[in-house]
Amino acid sequence: MPHDVAVLGTGMSPFGTWEGASLAPVHDVIDEALEVANVTPDRVDEAWWASLGFGGGQLGNQAAWVSTVPGLENVPAHRVENACASGGFAVRSACQAIRSGSVDVALVVGYERMNDQPGHRRGYWLGVSGETAWERMAGTTFPGVYALMANRHAHEHGTTDEQRAAIAVKNHRFAAKNPNAQFSKEVTMDRVLASPVVADPLRLFDCCGTTDGAAALVLASTEIAQELGREGSRITGSGAATDTLALHERESLTRLDATMNAKEAALAQAGVGIEVIDVAEVHDCFTIAEVLAVEDLGFVEKGEGGSASATGVTDRGGEVVVNPSGGLKGKGHPLGATGVAQIVEVHEQLAGEAGPRQVDGARVGLAHNVGGSGATCAVHVLEGGGA
Amino acid sequence: MPHDVAVLGTGMSPFGTWEGASLAPVHDVIDEALEVANVTPDRVDEAWWASLGFGGGQLGNQAAWVSTVPGLENVPAHRVENACASGGFAVRSACQAIRSGSVDVALVVGYERMNDQPGHRRGYWLGVSGETAWERMAGTTFPGVYALMANRHAHEHGTTDEQRAAIAVKNHRFAAKNPNAQFSKEVTMDRVLASPVVADPLRLFDCCGTTDGAAALVLASTEIAQELGREGSRITGSGAATDTLALHERESLTRLDATMNAKEAALAQAGVGIEVIDVAEVHDCFTIAEVLAVEDLGFVEKGEGGSASATGVTDRGGEVVVNPSGGLKGKGHPLGATGVAQIVEVHEQLAGEAGPRQVDGARVGLAHNVGGSGATCAVHVLEGGGA
Repeated sequence: MPHDVAVLGTGMSPFGTWEGASLAPVHDVIDEALEVANVTPDRVDEAWWASLGFGGGQLGNQAAWVSTVPGLENVPAHRVENACASGGFAVRSACQAIRSGSVDVALVVGYERMNDQPGHRRGYWLGVSGETAWERMAGTTFPGVYALMANRHAHEHGTTDEQRAAIAVKNHRFAAKNPNAQFSKEVTMDRVLASPVVADPLRLFDCCGTTDGAAALVLASTEIAQELGREGSRITGSGAATDTLALHERESLTRLDATMNAKEAALAQAGVGIEVIDVAEVHDCFTIAEVLAVEDLGFVEKGEGGSASATGVTDRGGEVVVNPSGGLKGKGHPLGATGVAQIVEVHEQLAGEAGPRQVDGARVGLAHNVGGSGATCAVHVLEGGGA
Repeated sequence: MPHDVAVLGTGMSPFGTWEGASLAPVHDVIDEALEVANVTPDRVDEAWWASLGFGGGQLGNQAAWVSTVPGLENVPAHRVENACASGGFAVRSACQAIRSGSVDVALVVGYERMNDQPGHRRGYWLGVSGETAWERMAGTTFPGVYALMANRHAHEHGTTDEQRAAIAVKNHRFAAKNPNAQFSKEVTMDRVLASPVVADPLRLFDCCGTTDGAAALVLASTEIAQELGREGSRITGSGAATDTLALHERESLTRLDATMNAKEAALAQAGVGIEVIDVAEVHDCFTIAEVLAVEDLGFVEKGEGGSASATGVTDRGGEVVVNPSGGLKGKGHPLGATGVAQIVEVHEQLAGEAGPRQVDGARVGLAHNVGGSGATCAVHVLEGGGA
């Protein structure tokens, strides 16, 4: 399989609120990923840095920061910014570079520090990824955009607040078993439904948090992986797609075409069908986003995403375990880090290294990373890993 | 040569100050590049968007904007942000994707709209690409950083104001023959030397302008180029490197190691030496930057970059014609567009399509794109084209 890319090593920081304001936690995840991969920094041929450039640190040209890591002094480094799908697109670029033959070992770093700014500045930096002319300038932030989709989904498919709340309950339950998760406590259905409204019908517990976090991957060609005697998981499919930034320019408010197109491309490259996926990390920035994701990825029929969590289809023991890490909802959503962290989780699941979160017999996994309200999407399929 | 990538089509907007505030000029350069390439938009497999996200338009997730071009609705699109080297790194990613075999035809768009903001906001957006802790927060903007390098170069090598001024005179003379250039008039040595000091020793005419601009490339595998019967130029070498963001962490103030490392990688991939380069677009955001570039690329010995322009080595009829487009200095420097526009110029020179700017007998060209004060650098070598 000449197109496969091996996952050699992974690194994850705690997600949550960090002290201080430096980029130092990135050092830690890079060190961890290299150590797990058992390669020295000088083996890294090229690096990709996924970030929205959030907060008060290094806002532009961030990729160059990797040169401060001993051994990475001169490594070419790209910054990729595709809003909340930055991580997925960075992984995709790294895979393309490895498949081109010019890169043997690649480093992908995802990073965001969202809590070093006062609240109104957070909204500013996050808001810039929204569509400008019709949404952002009209005051519609992301909860408002996803609320429009939630209302329309309820109208078309009868999706209820309780069905969405069941997603929050599931993902917080999963997150409670993830030591790196931002939210470590389970929540009850009652608590979700009693939480304050952010953008009707979305309540506080329908929304992900504001998160500091970093994640890293060391990727390599399968030849290098063999040479190093590594039997890690392999990225066997990468798909990506784009859609209009503005919601009103799309055919439907209850479907993300970018998800559907990226998924088709990823499955086609991997040569598998969606039914073989055992475990999936999907982009649940809001509960309605997981509803759309499980439908658009084809885990359930359109209109059945609302009930999928409540009926257990996407829960432990169901057809596919969705967001065993806790997802963006429970683990946290440090924008640029998210797409990288999703691959970390899927890899650990396939490697049987997910501890109390382990999905038994996970052989094939999928990561689904969305930018904006569906303007960009990257999907990756991973296989193997020895679980 | 399995690693070659063909340049099928190019598009360039006028550089300068645009009316209005939309992204519409990007439509025009994409249309132009596709028309020149003679391919329909549906042939494009993937797109790269180079931009610092400057100004008041779509600040994040900009790559998705290409989906509004008819025929590009779902094409995967990445935004690359490596400060002023965004364009060069976007071209590099596109080449890697083509060489991976998963992309036949790629679109690369570079864009910046710098003049839709009041002056203090321009400084803000531009400044974020500077190193934060030691330079930006201390009030050192890019003219200040390059002024440090200019003073040190004068100290070590005796480089004079007049030598740097000769670079401005040459590049404005070249720009006067470029209908897309921001500055259409030649300048005299006296005028350069009498212009106000911006950051001692750099005067107004040592600095590039503030520019709106866009450029686009359609790239393809050589197989597709043959299939389409296109004999365009080929990108035969791509090299990139990174260095510390902060100037004081580098060994030398008068050498950009990122330039040297990126050049070596690009020449090695192309399998040529620097002496075969007939024409080069180098990153002259300040006159001192061209001094460093011609030295670090190896066109002249270290310390001789100052006199290279005055003595004609880098002028028409010299060893290598540097910045026949007018360079950043004369043509303008719309940050994200610059690295893409450099490849457009080199391609037109090799294709014999550069009109009054044509360098006779240009067979091999080079594009040199720097991010920050040398924290990132991408170098590309182009050959052929039928000139």
